[in-house]
Amino acid sequence: MSEPSFFKRAAGLTVGAIAELTGAEPRPGTDLARRIAGIAALDRAAPGDIVFIDNARYLQHLPAVRAGACLAGARFLDRIPEHVGALCVREPYRAFVEVARKLFPEALRPSSLRAASGTAANATVHPSARMEMGVTIEPNVVIGPGAEIGADTLIAANSVIGPDVRIGRSCSIGSNATISHALIGDRVVIHPGCQIGQDGFGYIQAARRHVKVPQIGRVIIQDDVEIGALTTVDRGGIRDTVIGEGTKIDNLVQVGHNTTIGRHCIIVAQTGISGSVTIEDYAVLAARVGVYDHIRIGEGAQIAAAGVVWSDVPAGARLGGWPVRPVRQWLREIATVERLAGRSGGGPASTGEE
Amino acid sequence: MSEPSFFKRAAGLTVGAIAELTGAEPRPGTDLARRIAGIAALDRAAPGDIVFIDNARYLQHLPAVRAGACLAGARFLDRIPEHVGALCVREPYRAFVEVARKLFPEALRPSSLRAASGTAANATVHPSARMEMGVTIEPNVVIGPGAEIGADTLIAANSVIGPDVRIGRSCSIGSNATISHALIGDRVVIHPGCQIGQDGFGYIQAARRHVKVPQIGRVIIQDDVEIGALTTVDRGGIRDTVIGEGTKIDNLVQVGHNTTIGRHCIIVAQTGISGSVTIEDYAVLAARVGVYDHIRIGEGAQIAAAGVVWSDVPAGARLGGWPVRPVRQWLREIATVERLAGRSGGGPASTGEE
Amino acid sequence: MSEPSFFKRAAGLTVGAIAELTGAEPRPGTDLARRIAGIAALDRAAPGDIVFIDNARYLQHLPAVRAGACLAGARFLDRIPEHVGALCVREPYRAFVEVARKLFPEALRPSSLRAASGTAANATVHPSARMEMGVTIEPNVVIGPGAEIGADTLIAANSVIGPDVRIGRSCSIGSNATISHALIGDRVVIHPGCQIGQDGFGYIQAARRHVKVPQIGRVIIQDDVEIGALTTVDRGGIRDTVIGEGTKIDNLVQVGHNTTIGRHCIIVAQTGISGSVTIEDYAVLAARVGVYDHIRIGEGAQIAAAGVVWSDVPAGARLGGWPVRPVRQWLREIATVERLAGRSGGGPASTGEE
Repeated sequence: MSEPSFFKRAAGLTVGAIAELTGAEPRPGTDLARRIAGIAALDRAAPGDIVFIDNARYLQHLPAVRAGACLAGARFLDRIPEHVGALCVREPYRAFVEVARKLFPEALRPSSLRAASGTAANATVHPSARMEMGVTIEPNVVIGPGAEIGADTLIAANSVIGPDVRIGRSCSIGSNATISHALIGDRVVIHPGCQIGQDGFGYIQAARRHVKVPQIGRVIIQDDVEIGALTTVDRGGIRDTVIGEGTKIDNLVQVGHNTTIGRHCIIVAQTGISGSVTIEDYAVLAARVGVYDHIRIGEGAQIAAAGVVWSDVPAGARLGGWPVRPVRQWLREIATVERLAGRSGGGPASTGEE
Repeated sequence: MSEPSFFKRAAGLTVGAIAELTGAEPRPGTDLARRIAGIAALDRAAPGDIVFIDNARYLQHLPAVRAGACLAGARFLDRIPEHVGALCVREPYRAFVEVARKLFPEALRPSSLRAASGTAANATVHPSARMEMGVTIEPNVVIGPGAEIGADTLIAANSVIGPDVRIGRSCSIGSNATISHALIGDRVVIHPGCQIGQDGFGYIQAARRHVKVPQIGRVIIQDDVEIGALTTVDRGGIRDTVIGEGTKIDNLVQVGHNTTIGRHCIIVAQTGISGSVTIEDYAVLAARVGVYDHIRIGEGAQIAAAGVVWSDVPAGARLGGWPVRPVRQWLREIATVERLAGRSGGGPASTGEE
Repeated sequence: MSEPSFFKRAAGLTVGAIAELTGAEPRPGTDLARRIAGIAALDRAAPGDIVFIDNARYLQHLPAVRAGACLAGARFLDRIPEHVGALCVREPYRAFVEVARKLFPEALRPSSLRAASGTAANATVHPSARMEMGVTIEPNVVIGPGAEIGADTLIAANSVIGPDVRIGRSCSIGSNATISHALIGDRVVIHPGCQIGQDGFGYIQAARRHVKVPQIGRVIIQDDVEIGALTTVDRGGIRDTVIGEGTKIDNLVQVGHNTTIGRHCIIVAQTGISGSVTIEDYAVLAARVGVYDHIRIGEGAQIAAAGVVWSDVPAGARLGGWPVRPVRQWLREIATVERLAGRSGGGPASTGEE
């Protein structure tokens, strides 16, 4: 089995160009003409790679580092071996990301497995669907009547785009995804296997049976949203389900019907958002947060992983726990219970905490 | 980008017809000939829409409401503006749903992106599969040998139906779903991306390796079941995995092997049910409940969101927490811990609770 | 609707052969020539089936059991009715699994819905992809340029294999799965709907927007791994995401970028593992465990279901709770809170616990 490289290295950048790009100051003696073509972690770097260090935890790797250049804050600069080009910068990770984006522009957005744009011979595109220039439709994609797809958008293999769906420009729709009843903006990335626009979960009980409530709303996804693999977004029942501009959603997240998520939010993996929730701009929901229905989460609020939100959250709050409460209070409660229950004595307790 | 309407408005119903349908009493002066063609939320309604109000929280929207008709209980009837047809009814939401079902019959069940029934040219149907009249097979569907599909059933694009699977009449199988080793009743809705009938998770350890336990059971899904997007139902190992008549399951739920779910249960999103569990009729598992293996949950029991069930639950119980306990006890425990840990004083605490 | 049998019964094994296979000792008088062709649970068995009993809870089913043979420990042997062949063995369940594996060899690995190996006419395989002998490519599979697939591997219908992916020998890739940026070993089973190799979730904030961090690592899946339906494995950002030899992962699990899972681990359904986590060999994460990023879980550690891991876990630890702590301490804390909050008196409390 050969070892492929999934991202091709281009000509790269000189250390001097990297210093210019990131505003870093080269350590005296650094070879500015040296060429950097890859990025790597400290313990994996080869001579053509750039690395960064911003945490004392990883200083142990520095003596043996083989990288061509290293971005570091002033405090770690002396620790970088002589043979490595050292670049001093206030925010090493941010600078590193800037370089990575320059070196691997094709990794900024999922790309097609086809060489060229255009529609694969075995895609099924309804004649009434309209496509702008430069759209790529991979094999076995099915596009329903009346759908519209903007310039430069990729619809990956085996995806299904329902009737009358609108997808904007420069989007990437992953393989095995289904999108229906949705209007999608520009530069939106939907990762593989997402299911967007199906019925929300709405029933009333009648005669000891559950009777379906028709779900006639839509899904609105604004510009620059990214949605992780296998995430579900139900269409609205009576109003629309909305995901605001620039919001980033991770894998396996559930977004219920009628819910509005604001702009530039972060929603981490396995989070579940019930129906009719309102999440304001810049909120952050860490992994596996659960939000009850009809809740409002204020602007910039942050919920720690696994938190359960059953009442409204004010703007800017930092909460965690079940139900969520201010993080300091939550941690104090955990400590209080531990104290009241007593410790197990040496063995098990010291095994479990460190 | 044009704004499509995903659900076509039909001729609609007169306010008089709606009163008759729902048993509502029109407020004197209401124009019974007025025609209603849509449903909407209070703050979004146009003159052709019907709305409802049953919660004082939304009274603020009433003065400006533009709807054609409003369903309300007696207590709110006076608050409905003169220009809106007012219909007095004991259960406004229930009446509203009744009207919605009448106005949007095509929303009661996922429909095909194809205009006609029949098998798409690029579907792959094994010659030994049998289909009744009026089956719709969308593009790129793959149907294995010996499968049988009942009249009026839709198999949506890019789904895979394994060998010998049985699917009843008037079902909708969503796109990108896989169904194997399963017998499915009538009027079952399986939403996109569901994976049904794969191996359960069974291993024994031998010589420090995990050795697979063959999974030779089936999945039985009875009539009128609805299963949300990206839900997994593993086939039985040694007996069948069964989902009872009329049970409704939401998105991203896991149902383990050998588990039996009774009739008319509600299982909300991201819930996880381990193997060999028995859930009796009319049980309700709110979002993200977790159930240990070999547990029995009694008839009509209700588990609050995020609850972890590790011992049997008697019929009719109302439980929550980790492990689940009676809801009142659980809430008292939360309050007790909060009290013992002390409050944070003004700032953070008042930020976190309201 | 006819009732199909999804797993064909072969000629079966005689009771004598089963005794030999499992090292069981037949009860005197047991007919060793009797033929067993199926496995079943005690309450479902037919005369051609073998059953087992290893738990007093199921003794109630023994008097009426119709099986042809029963594996049991010495303590239950007398309880097996005369007409059932009784086989005494130290570990009845393990012996039962051994028989099941012998009777249903085709259930040890997902099989194709096609009768023959080879590439389906309507698969889309790039001419530069290389396949060894005996590969089965089902309909609508899409295989990108440069991909390599080993002998005897099955790629099930409607799956997508990205450019340059390597898949070893005797693997099964389920339907509706997507695999990109990945190197996969031999005898790996990926169940339907898995999404493997998409971008990890990495952003930095700049000018009040989230800016994507390029994800240029890979996914490495070693030999004999099994991954459940609808599980997501993100490719590495700066190093690889690795799943070690023999590890078994259940459905709807999330594995974050840069994470390394060791060999022979068990990861149960709905577990979420953040980025840059290290899990050492033989660790067990029960259902819905959550692991924070950059955590290390030591060799052989076991985390109880729903546990939240936010600090490192030493080898061999047995932890549970939120955050996880030694199981005995955790249970004592639960009991302490219950005691401090007081019980509800007879009614509700006795309803909730048993």
